[in-house]
Amino acid sequence: MKLFTSTLMCLLPLAAANSLLGFELNLMPMPAKVTPGQGRLIIDPNFRVAVSGQADGRLLATALRLIERISAQTGIPLSHELASDPAQATLIFECNGPGKPVQQFGEDESYQLSVSDKQARITAPNPLGDIRGAATFAQLVDSDQQGFGVPVVEIEDQPRFPWRGLMLDVSRHWIPIDVVKRNLNAMAAVKMNVLHWHLSDDQGFRIESKKFPKLQELGSDGNFYTQDQVREVIEYARERGIRVVPEFDMPGHTSSWLVGYPELASGPGPYEIGRHWGVYDEAMDPAKESTYKLLDAFIGEMAKLFPDEYFHIGGDEVNGKAWNANPNIQKFMQENGLKDNHALQAYFNRRVQAIVQKHGKHMEGWDEILDPDLPKNIVIQSWRGQKSLSDAARLGYSGLLSHGYYLDLMQPASQHYLVDPMDQEAATLTPDEARRIMGGEACMWTEYASPATIDSRTWPRAAAIAERLWSPRDVRDVASMYRRLAVISRNLDWTGVRHRANYQPMLERLSDGDPTTAVKTLADVVEPVRGYKRGSIYESVQSTPLTRLIDAARPESDLAREFSSDVDAVIAHQGKTDEVRRWLTIWRDNNGRLEPAIEQSFLLRDTAPVSRELSQVAAAGLEALDAVEAGRRLPADWLQQQTALLEEAAKPKAGVMLMVVAPVQKLVNAAAGTAQ
Amino acid sequence: MKLFTSTLMCLLPLAAANSLLGFELNLMPMPAKVTPGQGRLIIDPNFRVAVSGQADGRLLATALRLIERISAQTGIPLSHELASDPAQATLIFECNGPGKPVQQFGEDESYQLSVSDKQARITAPNPLGDIRGAATFAQLVDSDQQGFGVPVVEIEDQPRFPWRGLMLDVSRHWIPIDVVKRNLNAMAAVKMNVLHWHLSDDQGFRIESKKFPKLQELGSDGNFYTQDQVREVIEYARERGIRVVPEFDMPGHTSSWLVGYPELASGPGPYEIGRHWGVYDEAMDPAKESTYKLLDAFIGEMAKLFPDEYFHIGGDEVNGKAWNANPNIQKFMQENGLKDNHALQAYFNRRVQAIVQKHGKHMEGWDEILDPDLPKNIVIQSWRGQKSLSDAARLGYSGLLSHGYYLDLMQPASQHYLVDPMDQEAATLTPDEARRIMGGEACMWTEYASPATIDSRTWPRAAAIAERLWSPRDVRDVASMYRRLAVISRNLDWTGVRHRANYQPMLERLSDGDPTTAVKTLADVVEPVRGYKRGSIYESVQSTPLTRLIDAARPESDLAREFSSDVDAVIAHQGKTDEVRRWLTIWRDNNGRLEPAIEQSFLLRDTAPVSRELSQVAAAGLEALDAVEAGRRLPADWLQQQTALLEEAAKPKAGVMLMVVAPVQKLVNAAAGTAQ
Repeated sequence: MKLFTSTLMCLLPLAAANSLLGFELNLMPMPAKVTPGQGRLIIDPNFRVAVSGQADGRLLATALRLIERISAQTGIPLSHELASDPAQATLIFECNGPGKPVQQFGEDESYQLSVSDKQARITAPNPLGDIRGAATFAQLVDSDQQGFGVPVVEIEDQPRFPWRGLMLDVSRHWIPIDVVKRNLNAMAAVKMNVLHWHLSDDQGFRIESKKFPKLQELGSDGNFYTQDQVREVIEYARERGIRVVPEFDMPGHTSSWLVGYPELASGPGPYEIGRHWGVYDEAMDPAKESTYKLLDAFIGEMAKLFPDEYFHIGGDEVNGKAWNANPNIQKFMQENGLKDNHALQAYFNRRVQAIVQKHGKHMEGWDEILDPDLPKNIVIQSWRGQKSLSDAARLGYSGLLSHGYYLDLMQPASQHYLVDPMDQEAATLTPDEARRIMGGEACMWTEYASPATIDSRTWPRAAAIAERLWSPRDVRDVASMYRRLAVISRNLDWTGVRHRANYQPMLERLSDGDPTTAVKTLADVVEPVRGYKRGSIYESVQSTPLTRLIDAARPESDLAREFSSDVDAVIAHQGKTDEVRRWLTIWRDNNGRLEPAIEQSFLLRDTAPVSRELSQVAAAGLEALDAVEAGRRLPADWLQQQTALLEEAAKPKAGVMLMVVAPVQKLVNAAAGTAQ
Repeated sequence: MKLFTSTLMCLLPLAAANSLLGFELNLMPMPAKVTPGQGRLIIDPNFRVAVSGQADGRLLATALRLIERISAQTGIPLSHELASDPAQATLIFECNGPGKPVQQFGEDESYQLSVSDKQARITAPNPLGDIRGAATFAQLVDSDQQGFGVPVVEIEDQPRFPWRGLMLDVSRHWIPIDVVKRNLNAMAAVKMNVLHWHLSDDQGFRIESKKFPKLQELGSDGNFYTQDQVREVIEYARERGIRVVPEFDMPGHTSSWLVGYPELASGPGPYEIGRHWGVYDEAMDPAKESTYKLLDAFIGEMAKLFPDEYFHIGGDEVNGKAWNANPNIQKFMQENGLKDNHALQAYFNRRVQAIVQKHGKHMEGWDEILDPDLPKNIVIQSWRGQKSLSDAARLGYSGLLSHGYYLDLMQPASQHYLVDPMDQEAATLTPDEARRIMGGEACMWTEYASPATIDSRTWPRAAAIAERLWSPRDVRDVASMYRRLAVISRNLDWTGVRHRANYQPMLERLSDGDPTTAVKTLADVVEPVRGYKRGSIYESVQSTPLTRLIDAARPESDLAREFSSDVDAVIAHQGKTDEVRRWLTIWRDNNGRLEPAIEQSFLLRDTAPVSRELSQVAAAGLEALDAVEAGRRLPADWLQQQTALLEEAAKPKAGVMLMVVAPVQKLVNAAAGTAQ
């Protein structure tokens, strides 16, 4: 693992240089070292790629993928034939050595990218580094007044943390293989390197077992990946420099297993696939030898299918109720001196760890599996925070941070961005202990995400987490992050991920197609409520369609953020008045346009107060703006009236928050406080 | 073939019934017979499908595809398990007999769809009919104030013509396999049943030959389909009820063949892949026996790969120059009494026809192949019109109409819609002769279409042609077509075709992401110039990026059409004033917003006059609107001035036409003619 200290020294002068030159490249994650130059490498129909050095299938695939990516972005039809003579190539991939047959944790991902106005060259010690360099090159492509090109630059880069993952829950909502693939494309674009595939949970068992076919036959509603598809995804990920770590959550979160194999259960059954959310009481029976026999055979089958050396067994949220209710389990605990359910789970984990290790894997699990009796080669994934992470590190365990990276909580990118695995308790670790923190994983649980919405719930915010885990520790300027994120988000379109593309169809569904501009005007300035509150607003079971305004709305309203900054400028008399007036006018008039659609649409109906309040808030904002512009002070009773209106409008309704209320409140305050 | 006469009688009372009930279902193509009922079949999470009768893989695939389609459209997570008990199903597919192992021309496509408020049933004599019924059912899904559902209805349906094709040119621009597939999805949605795959032309040889590998190795820039991919496409098409007919254009349009196999050529060579558009002089040498030997082996290979009984040999646009310049060919003509190049090509066609027939296929070709010496089992595809089609029919040849269906000419849907294969000269055919007209094909040549734009050049307009070829002859109300087309176009999104989805990324590329609303405002009201004029406006070779406003703009501006109808209402004092004013105001202000982006963008720069003129036209429109509203008459010199402005603005610039000029002219005229 390469720690940030080695690159910190290089970065500081660079940051200064960047700012002196008045530009910052649209890269995310920001590389360890960037030295900008003068001029541009033109990208035109003659763009050709050559590959030299170590022959590797991944490298060829990466070169072809880059050609397609650039062709899509620029619209230039490019030849798919590689240049046989590197001197004729626009971009040369140089690969100085072989990669591991199975991509390994900690495998070197460094590369150098050198761009002159004649040619670009990516040099790396292995194919993995070239793959990372290709992602950087793709992000550098932009247009100026002459055409497409790449700025002249020297980049030396390697990651700060060797484990930069995305956990995808495909159990709560089934996520088809093409959706997984397009998200792998996006991950590769921001240099994430682990797909943590949460394949089983109470609500669905999502993978074919040939040894235990009732797992998928009775536990999946027919929605599962065949083993051939799994191999396809693993290969697809490998070509993009991404490891695939499967998770089979146990002994809790296992209702879907128990439908077909009730003999695994602690209770009497019968069992059904879980249809609601939350923690279930069911759990596997840790007291029966037959449980371990089945798990040995199952884990053996899966260990062969997944080549990665890590294997995730979940282990979270066992409430113990099924164990308490089972006399045999209670007897077993007494006989074995297991004083409580935590001890029983620890026993279970030790048995499972032995099985996982027997099949050649390191066991990984959530915080709850931490137990000093387990060997040190396991990995703790912390959903609880840096404290449990550093506790584990002090005990000698490796760990990953996920606390703070739960994308499904609908928090702003800035909030995730500023969470650092080495902060808080982790800041007090010794260097040896600190080295046990392998990185982190963004988590995308899917109680409230479907194939149509998972992309927009994941992207672009996951890119901010990717930067946290790749870039030097002191790359943490939020304004810079948002500026770059806007560009990266647009460019992610070219990878096929649909975080932006699915917006319009979802808006059209809301209003049955008409008038979508008015729906969009509203949706553009709302955000879903934070956390898991959707379940208390709408019916919330597995079959609930995720098709409301709360689902269409992006987790973060860029427009509201920009508007807020424009309002600040207005109050500081630094311009932007026209822009603020334009938006306020559009919003004021929007409810009149949207109301007929709201009345017609069963999906929009409950957003009526949100739409009405947007128009009221905007009208208040316009009055305030007039006063601010004219230098008139508005009276206290006006202020009081508007503030009451704004306070009401600030309350979430239909599961969404009106994000322009706060900036309008600033404007209203300014109008009431101005006296000239 | 089922002619329209049998269904005409049913349709007329239905049309009356529809209009009495005040609604018309959003179906395209309109079925032969529709009997609306009362009430709705609800689509909710309990939606289940059952399949009964004849077992068939296509039927199962269709059922699963329909579930996915409905799940995508409604956002309802649906079970992918079929109901084993039909009584439990929402929709039952009933299939009363087997289909042909290879889908055949003229195979029965009829079906009945019966929807009650409890259950729906699709009944068909074979799987093909069920596939068509599924497409109808998918189109019926809509939402009302309560939720998603399907109206109660009885439909009896079958096509008017048995051949309803789409020709895709994948040579001029390489069209990757995923683009072909998504267009097959869209074809199936509107019941088109033939993919005519134009696989070779001067500019690229797009399919792997194992016998003659230099065809793809030297003739494709690496952009070709492997035989496995071709089989995949054929199977994909078959599951959707679509036949795949390959075209290998010969003896002209063959430059890409000659790069690897110059011995086929009439000239001395050497040859290169064609990089520009237009008719090339090169042609195969019809005087050499070796030509037929190679073609026999090649056609034999392809005849095995493509199971369809038709095989298209092109045969168009041979200018004869290479033949004139070759003394051996001249000698051969003299010796064989071939008096001119037409006779020589006829000789070539007879030889090729014998080869095609030997390999078990009917030969198909463009108008030029028509020659009374050819056997009657060939098919003439007419790009010239109903006259050559009916000439062929009188001679006993079967034919397809493509004249009038060239989507790449960028004509409005209404224009294609009103072209009928049985009109003009074809109207005078005897019933026996008329029966030889098998249908028609929309054509999508790709000189000016790329993978990113081909969808929007094809859809939704191809759906209007699909209706012409499927629905009863008297279904030809343009207003009804446009109303339904708007819904169908939106719904085609759910099939994965990107005619709408690619609009936004193309606009963002134009302006480098900012401000896309202003770019969209302009793009929404322009149309590309008709015909092939792009080539005279921009550099026009194979590597030219198709990324300008002309490429982003839709072939038809729905907004301009709606605006025009709103202006008519204003002039007739039937309301719509607010709507017209709103648009005129947006357009008037747009240039101010767009100008900075135009200055920055190398792709937008030449649209500056279009943007400026839109604002000027809108300003004129606002003055006129004020006068019309106030009942004031504006003076003659004002009219003259505005008319001069509008005439200038009506001239295409940057390859686009400003489609709101005409309606504004009407408003201006009304303002000058009003006196109260």
